Formats: sequence, structure tokens, C-alpha cells
Amino acid sequence: MTASKPIEYRDASPAVRAVFDDIKATRKVDDVNNFWKYLAADPPTLARTWQGVKEIMAPGSLDVLVKEMIYLAVSVTNGCGYCTASHTAAARRAGMSEAMFGELMAVVGMANETNRLANGYRVPIDPALER
Amino acid sequence: MTASKPIEYRDASPAVRAVFDDIKATRKVDDVNNFWKYLAADPPTLARTWQGVKEIMAPGSLDVLVKEMIYLAVSVTNGCGYCTASHTAAARRAGMSEAMFGELMAVVGMANETNRLANGYRVPIDPALER
Amino acid sequence: MTASKPIEYRDASPAVRAVFDDIKATRKVDDVNNFWKYLAADPPTLARTWQGVKEIMAPGSLDVLVKEMIYLAVSVTNGCGYCTASHTAAARRAGMSEAMFGELMAVVGMANETNRLANGYRVPIDPALER
Amino acid sequence: MTASKPIEYRDASPAVRAVFDDIKATRKVDDVNNFWKYLAADPPTLARTWQGVKEIMAPGSLDVLVKEMIYLAVSVTNGCGYCTASHTAAARRAGMSEAMFGELMAVVGMANETNRLANGYRVPIDPALER
Amino acid sequence: MTASKPIEYRDASPAVRAVFDDIKATRKVDDVNNFWKYLAADPPTLARTWQGVKEIMAPGSLDVLVKEMIYLAVSVTNGCGYCTASHTAAARRAGMSEAMFGELMAVVGMANETNRLANGYRVPIDPALER
Amino acid sequence: MTASKPIEYRDASPAVRAVFDDIKATRKVDDVNNFWKYLAADPPTLARTWQGVKEIMAPGSLDVLVKEMIYLAVSVTNGCGYCTASHTAAARRAGMSEAMFGELMAVVGMANETNRLANGYRVPIDPALER
Repeated sequence: MTASKPIEYRDASPAVRAVFDDIKATRKVDDVNNFWKYLAADPPTLARTWQGVKEIMAPGSLDVLVKEMIYLAVSVTNGCGYCTASHTAAARRAGMSEAMFGELMAVVGMANETNRLANGYRVPIDPALER
Repeated sequence: MTASKPIEYRDASPAVRAVFDDIKATRKVDDVNNFWKYLAADPPTLARTWQGVKEIMAPGSLDVLVKEMIYLAVSVTNGCGYCTASHTAAARRAGMSEAMFGELMAVVGMANETNRLANGYRVPIDPALER
Repeated sequence: MTASKPIEYRDASPAVRAVFDDIKATRKVDDVNNFWKYLAADPPTLARTWQGVKEIMAPGSLDVLVKEMIYLAVSVTNGCGYCTASHTAAARRAGMSEAMFGELMAVVGMANETNRLANGYRVPIDPALER
Repeated sequence: MTASKPIEYRDASPAVRAVFDDIKATRKVDDVNNFWKYLAADPPTLARTWQGVKEIMAPGSLDVLVKEMIYLAVSVTNGCGYCTASHTAAARRAGMSEAMFGELMAVVGMANETNRLANGYRVPIDPALER
Repeated sequence: MTASKPIEYRDASPAVRAVFDDIKATRKVDDVNNFWKYLAADPPTLARTWQGVKEIMAPGSLDVLVKEMIYLAVSVTNGCGYCTASHTAAARRAGMSEAMFGELMAVVGMANETNRLANGYRVPIDPALER
Repeated sequence: MTASKPIEYRDASPAVRAVFDDIKATRKVDDVNNFWKYLAADPPTLARTWQGVKEIMAPGSLDVLVKEMIYLAVSVTNGCGYCTASHTAAARRAGMSEAMFGELMAVVGMANETNRLANGYRVPIDPALER
């Protein structure tokens, strides 16, 4: 056996069930995504990760849609297939239109391109940017 | 000599000057950043990159501030020092407050963490995410 | 045809067979993994890579289990699916328990998060760290 | 002004001071590193990040030295200069010798190389690795 | 629905068809790859990306084969599965032999290894390299 | 003390001097770069890395200039500052002109952009690419 196994609600310990219940109540969903079922193999990581996501992704100075698009931009840049699929879905639920998705991808693509042009040309930081 | 040299306006060809003039007019600045002075060593790349940035970063379905924060999220994820400095400045000019920057970094950090948890636990994509 | 083809033992040249034999003897396995069968398309890379892996992954100042967990940490960070699968298996064979895997992933996730916080806040290196 | 400013203990709010005090007590140091002074610009991120680091880096199934070397492996792979400096120092304090550092770097280098060979040769996962 | 849908020629707008026609004529192919069918969801990105690729990948100071191998080296380093598959095919069409592919992968692997050794040993840039 | 120290020829062991001598003879230089002086802290890694670089970077199916440009493309993509500086110098010594450098950077930038567009649009591999 090489991979961890996902843990379903019916097989979960009370501590894991408490996290799953909070995810379902917070997100108004009937079941949690695979991500949480796999993390359940390590209950402290499950609890800490959910607590962090719940706090960070709540509305604040940035609204939920903006946060989800930023999450997606990072996931696409890192090439994380699972994360790209799940945060595309989350961003759409939060209101991302097709046109917004298209512009998001255009910015992500351009940023990745210019990041490498800056690296390759070894551009020093402008003094005005340091003030 | 190993590195390319930045090209100042006074030493630039007419084609490069035209791009510099358009950057200065579009951004209402007196001089262009080092990034553009280094790219000027290769005028086609300078012109194409500026044209792309100008189109992509204009207001559309996403406003300028959101686009700048996405650009910054990518630059931070890639560890591009120049890009992080210049797009932090650009996002602040577009209205990013300290509180917004703090939330942006929190999302970027969390996304980079959960991207690796998804990779390490080898989480398969939920069928519901594929529909 | 776009992809390279894996080379099985029965079809391999004597030079490739010698590497396969050494892998099988060193690892006490009946067959080599796909990785080596694909590298066999380029015998010098096959031989050099196996020689490097064999030397580096042998017990030394660090034991085999620690080395395998470091290998896995890098593979997860890079999002290499094949490498994550094969080095999860290798680390388990070397003695990694479920609890150790859970802690390893927690460290990898946290390191990826704080790497980006350090980038985004553009934290300068403390003088005390340079001594 | 483009960059966030570090916050020194004397200028910190009670909430930030409480985190700084806990870092100093836990690590038995007179002052906290720059990383924490910069994060202090966003107290919730400071508190959550320290709480996560404190829990994750405590001895468990993996000892502190192994955890610090894994942290360093990720930081080196991501090219985070600050993180590489600070976790090299932390790993040395936890007992990493010159020989252990040398072997750690050898594994990190080799893993980054073989990750790309696996990507480039498009190696499919062996069925035996999936069981 | 979470993913964008590919757009086939028969369903495409005149603007999208014009790009598809140019790709087919330039590359002498009967149909465009999936990449372009997905980008067609956002016509400005489709047009800008094709224009950039067409200009950049044309013969210049570097010939087409060298450019395709550089493209492949980047895609392998980033772990982009689609890009690795499509640019391996493109490089083969441009004349990359098995032996050339083998050497390309060897260089890509070695560069990824030494990049991390330079990061981990924190090697300062030689003054002679800055001249 | 947190960082490793570079080892100069006059302080090196016979085994390290032998590697330094071979580097100087092979490259026809009076002194080795900082990279090798830092690696000398771990003589097996020094010897293995030099042996690998020497074999891989020798002329073969790809000439030296192409290999150096591929090395640079990877280093720029990874954001390795030392490697970008040293391999820009090496590529120039091998004959890379300003125009070739400009085209190389354009390809590297475009590849990094389209890698992310492929990730974000989750483009499936065309069946024709798998044959």
C-alpha cells in the first residue's frame, strides 16, 4: 500500500466528524470534497488546515470572489491539477463569469511571462520602488 | 560583459521611444521602470510585452486593483523579487490598503500550502468538480 | 510518434541490462520501475542517473528513511506526480509510518506557505543569520 | 511607500507582543527574527502562522532535526533566499553537521533532477505503485 | 459546470475562425490542437497568444528546432503535462532526433540539480560575472 | 555560523584540487567559479557534479551553444540568480549574440505564459499527441 486512503464520514472519528460537520455547515454542502477526506488521515492537519481556510477565505477587506480568484491564480501557477479544478468551481460559485475567468487567466499568463523576462534580463529594483 | 544594459530614453531608437512614450502617457509617469529599459535591448519583445500588458491590465470584467493583486500573487508564488516589488507598488497605487495586502498574502500563503497537501496526499478530482 | 518508449529487459542492450541488473540486485526487486525503463532510451543518462541515485541514497550521515522523506518533500513541492508516487512507496518501504507521513506533509505544506509570506513581505535576511 | 515595515517589540500592540513573547520563550532567544516582525503588520496572520509553526515543528513522530532539514529542502527547491538562510541556521542549531548538510543538498539536487527526467520522459505510474 | 469548453471550428465566431485558419495555414495542419480550442473561450487571449507564438517561434537568430527545444525545456521544468506532450511533438516535427531529445533531457535535469545546489550553498555571484 | 564557506585552491585537499585542475584545464580558465568553491565543502558532490556537467555539456547531438541556452532557459524559469548570471556568461562565451539572447528570452517568457494557460484551461492532451 503506498497511498493514503480517504476517510468517509461513516468511518470517521468524532474529532474528524466535527471538522466535516463544520465544513458542511459553513459551505452549505451535503458532503465534503476529497481533499478533506484525504487530510482526515492526519486529524491535526485536517483541523488546522480547515481552521486556516475558514478564517482566511471569509469576507474581509477582500471579498470572497477576489480571494477565490487569487487562490486559483496561485494553483494555476503551481500546476496543481486538483486545486485548479476545485478552486475554479469555488470561484464560479462565488460569481466568477466566463469573461472574468478569461481575464484572470490572461493576467496569470502575462505575470508568469514577465516574471521570467525580469529574471532573464536580471532587472535591478528601481530605487523609487524601495521607498 | 555578461548582462544586458538598460537603455535610457536619450539613447533609444525611435521605435523604442514610441513605446516609452506610450508607457509614460498611459501610466502618467515621468520615466519608465527599469523593466522596460532592459527589455528595450530587444525592441520586438519590448513592443509585444507592453502591448500585452496594456491590453490585459486595462479595466474589463475585473477592475485594475483586482488584476494587480492577481499579478502580485503570481509574482510572490514564483519568488520574483523585481516583480513583487513593482507590482506591490502598482497595487498600492491602484488602491490596495495594508489590510488588503495582509489578506492577499494570507490567501497566497494558504494556497501554496494546500497545493502541496493536495499533491502529497495525491487527492483525485471529485467527480462533481468535473461536471 | 511523440513519446519515448520504455525498454524492457528482454529488449535491452548489454549496457542497459548491466544497469538494470545492478538496480535489481541493489534494491532486491524482480523488475525495475518504469522510470528506469524510459531512461534506457538514453543509456548514458540511465547509467549516470542510477550511479548518482545509488551513491546519494546509500546510508551516510543521514539514514535512508530521512533521505527518502527529503526526496518526497522535493517531489511534492515540485508537483511531480510520478516522483511523489514512487518516493512515497520508497519511504514506506524504508519505514515511514502513517504518522510520519502526516507530519512530513504538514512540514512541507507549512514551508511552502511561509516561503511565500517571506517573499511577499520581502523580508531582509537578519544580520545574525549571516554570521 | 511600497514595502511593509517591520514592527519592533517596543512599537507592538499587546496582541503582537504576546506572540513575540511566546516565540522568544519557546525558542529561548532574546529577539524574534525579521520574518515575525514583518508578519506583525497583519496580526491574525502572525498569530496563525506562529501557532502552526509551533505545533508542526515540535517533536513528534519525526524529530526536530529531520523536520528542519525537510523545511530547508523545500526552501532550497523554491529558491526562497530568506527561508534558506533562516532554516539553514535552525537546522544547524538542531544538530545538522557539515556532512549532513552536504548529503541533504545532494538529495535535494538529485530529486530536482529526476523530477524533470520523469516529467520529460512522461513516465506513467507503475501499477505496483498504486496498490 | 466548472471547466471551460473547447470550441470547434463549426461553432466558432468569425474572429475565432480567422485565428484557427491562420494557425492551420501557418502550420499546414487540418485542425488546431486542443490548446487553441480552449483558448477560444476568450477570443482576445486566443488572438494575442497566437500572434505572440507565431512571431516568437518563426526562424530568426535561432532556428525553429532550437526554439522548440527551449520551449520543451521550460515545459518540463514547470511540470506542464500538456505542454510537454505538445512541444515534444513539435520539436520532433522540427527535426529533434532521439539522441537530441536524450541530451536535451540530460541538460534540463542537470540544470535543475545545479540550480538547487547554488540555492542551497547560497553561492554569491562572482565579480567577474557582473562585468 | 550558518553558511558554508567557499574553499580556495590553496586550502583544498588533493581530491578537491584534482577536480579544480580538471575544471580549469577543460574550460581554459585561471580559477574556478564560486559555485565549485562552495561545492568543495562536500567533495563527493563536487566530483559527481563536475563529472556530470562535463559529460552532459560536451558537444554531442546538440552543440555547446544550444546546450548553454537550454541551461539558461531552465535557470531563468526557476529564478536562480546565480545560475542565470553564470550561464548567461557561459552562453555568451559559446557564441550567443544579443539577438539570440533576446529571442531566447522571448521563447522562455512565452513558454511560461502558455504553460499556465494550459494549466488554467485544463486542456486535455490531444489523442494525436499520444500516438
